[in-house]
Amino acid sequence: MGFEQGLFRFPEGVDSSQYIFATYYLETPLEPHQAAEILASEQSTGTWMRIKYETEERREKYGAKVVGVHPLPYDAGQCHLPTKVALNGKINAAVVRIGFPTINFSPNLTNLLSTVVGEAYELESFTALKLLDIELPPSFTQHFNGPKFGIDGLRHILDIRDRPLIGAIIKPCVGLSPEETAELAYQGAKGGLDFIKDDELLADAAYNPVKERVKVITAALKRADEEKGEKTIYAFNITDRPSRLRELHDIVVENGGGCIMVNVAALGYESLSELSAFAEVPIFAHRVFASAYLRSPYLGMSLEVLNKLWRLGGADMILIGAIGGKVYGSDAEVVASARACNQGFPHLKRSLPASSGGQWAGKLAGNVAAFGHVDFLHLSGGGVFAHPMGAEAGARSLRQAWDAYRQDIPLEEYAREHPELRAALEHFGG
Amino acid sequence: MGFEQGLFRFPEGVDSSQYIFATYYLETPLEPHQAAEILASEQSTGTWMRIKYETEERREKYGAKVVGVHPLPYDAGQCHLPTKVALNGKINAAVVRIGFPTINFSPNLTNLLSTVVGEAYELESFTALKLLDIELPPSFTQHFNGPKFGIDGLRHILDIRDRPLIGAIIKPCVGLSPEETAELAYQGAKGGLDFIKDDELLADAAYNPVKERVKVITAALKRADEEKGEKTIYAFNITDRPSRLRELHDIVVENGGGCIMVNVAALGYESLSELSAFAEVPIFAHRVFASAYLRSPYLGMSLEVLNKLWRLGGADMILIGAIGGKVYGSDAEVVASARACNQGFPHLKRSLPASSGGQWAGKLAGNVAAFGHVDFLHLSGGGVFAHPMGAEAGARSLRQAWDAYRQDIPLEEYAREHPELRAALEHFGG
Repeated sequence: MGFEQGLFRFPEGVDSSQYIFATYYLETPLEPHQAAEILASEQSTGTWMRIKYETEERREKYGAKVVGVHPLPYDAGQCHLPTKVALNGKINAAVVRIGFPTINFSPNLTNLLSTVVGEAYELESFTALKLLDIELPPSFTQHFNGPKFGIDGLRHILDIRDRPLIGAIIKPCVGLSPEETAELAYQGAKGGLDFIKDDELLADAAYNPVKERVKVITAALKRADEEKGEKTIYAFNITDRPSRLRELHDIVVENGGGCIMVNVAALGYESLSELSAFAEVPIFAHRVFASAYLRSPYLGMSLEVLNKLWRLGGADMILIGAIGGKVYGSDAEVVASARACNQGFPHLKRSLPASSGGQWAGKLAGNVAAFGHVDFLHLSGGGVFAHPMGAEAGARSLRQAWDAYRQDIPLEEYAREHPELRAALEHFGG
Repeated sequence: MGFEQGLFRFPEGVDSSQYIFATYYLETPLEPHQAAEILASEQSTGTWMRIKYETEERREKYGAKVVGVHPLPYDAGQCHLPTKVALNGKINAAVVRIGFPTINFSPNLTNLLSTVVGEAYELESFTALKLLDIELPPSFTQHFNGPKFGIDGLRHILDIRDRPLIGAIIKPCVGLSPEETAELAYQGAKGGLDFIKDDELLADAAYNPVKERVKVITAALKRADEEKGEKTIYAFNITDRPSRLRELHDIVVENGGGCIMVNVAALGYESLSELSAFAEVPIFAHRVFASAYLRSPYLGMSLEVLNKLWRLGGADMILIGAIGGKVYGSDAEVVASARACNQGFPHLKRSLPASSGGQWAGKLAGNVAAFGHVDFLHLSGGGVFAHPMGAEAGARSLRQAWDAYRQDIPLEEYAREHPELRAALEHFGG
């Protein structure tokens, strides 16, 4: 397959308003420009042979275009993905940019994924292929409404202006009855949580159905709200078959629930868009399962891409990993991906990134420092519900950690007169 | 976190009718049994701290169980996934088996994925985690109907008993009008194709909408069927937002279409189940996007798992890669994954595996030899539509290749009196 000069051009050479641009890292035994051409061809007109009706004019209009090839140094000679191709000791690395004509597919996330995270991942001539970034023109994004509430909407609902949202995930996540879940939620809310959510593993289970859960938790939170004079919202996990989303959404809303959650990657990205089109409450987007294609630097896509697409799809909150937590990503990566929840798309509201995984009171200041702002949700699990003095104290320890931070008082000092924080430091800080 | 003896038991120790068993390959700086416990805990009761209500009884009932730990030799000392954990030069490898109580989730593929391909992929203490296999008890599989047609149904529709199904994908896949697509389909059908399908990149596009395509292609195939005295079915790609699947399915069926296709991984697995519940024609399941979590040996899931789940979900045909083709998997892997389209689940019909990627007449015999039987779909693209004598001749070359194989005549010899096969050998065999 020859390298076709006519298809190789720079961004200035295409009408960028009619293209989606995807940036990939790739490794290949081929020359980088040749690999880029194969990628563009495979994901548009593509087969391994030139065929009837595939005129130059057609290729110009419908073919994906290579708009950038940046060879990178690559010394390791290491093959990062299985291949049948003889490598002969030579592997090249490059960052390439491909433009996909928007005319090729209808504007939904399913077809977008088919195109940009497509079959090229299977080609034996790539020994690494990672989608790093995606740029979407207004002609595509205009079909998406993005978050209905977003950061500002959530702040408005909760009446919180100047601090991170403090939240927790109910643990243990399996085996609790609705009443026990409500009791834990009440304690956490009473202690000062702004946000509580189901775990991603508990959905509409027979032993704890959504309907029962909403009823008792809504009543419990109402009681806590009145007692503390603040508001707490609870995200009910309605992940299920796509056609049940509306039914479960309606059950939540009709019974007074204030928020829903879905495992977007397991469900399908476009189900998020469809849900957000009718959702009356904010949506928390969980990324469970996505890690299977996010974590490798050599395959799949970056979390930045996922965050952009889920914001388009209407996620009000997006789980992005943890600052200083037990998940794999470095703080720098987490911060970069948090930015992708908000950058670009000026017609869309901003999604709130959620930092979760091994979080507790002692981690809050580090989160603020890493993000450089307070537009995030700090989400604990055991950090609240495994607090030695109970869940209410666990929640309180987090609010105390914020108060200490705001007043610029070292945590240890503040803890002297705040027993919940002190217990957290002793219990989790060891 | 200590190693809790009580949770560690062998398969004989749990009621296997109430558990889903998942088998993983993992790499970890921890001891394998400890890593297995973390995996089980994270994907069930899970957090990093023991908490209220998490009684022994609850853990017994709802907790995932480690039912096997098989340490493996691991000498490379290499870290295959990013982590923040200090490895100190030591990484252990193991195959572990975890049992998940079916009581924890409602029987659908979305929630199954959330559980078995879950957050454990993110944990910094795993430097590899690959789901190799999954065993599903009747208490779970009884909720799934599997393929409506399957291999036997497809053979009945096409009246083919004793040979592989011969198919082709229309190429180029973007830019053709419905009429041009129909003309190519007619030629291929006339030449003897049993099956033709849209490419995964062409769905309900504005320049070639499904409705127009079905009308003209159905008419073209009817003409071809009458002329050749055989039947050809065409799989229309109806991949779109989940809520449009029924509309597009109905458009296909009402206009005489005989088959549909969906990009299951991009759409969401459970959308396949929902589609199959009402589908009146066979479903071709395309795996585009899935390669992002299939290809790495260190992350994600195996193709066997995907094939099992898609069979449950109702896929009549499943794209599994290629024997001797341009995609990454070895022939042995492709054959193993083909088996997963049919093994187990005696109450379900069998899915037909499709071998696709760089296929043409010269590859057919190798496919039969590798599979060891003829229960597969041999799927070309350029091998038909880039044939130098045209698509009809391309199709004919494949039927000739089968005739030669059946009569045990070497291809080159048979080609002497069969110009279409001869041209294929000259053009593609170089």
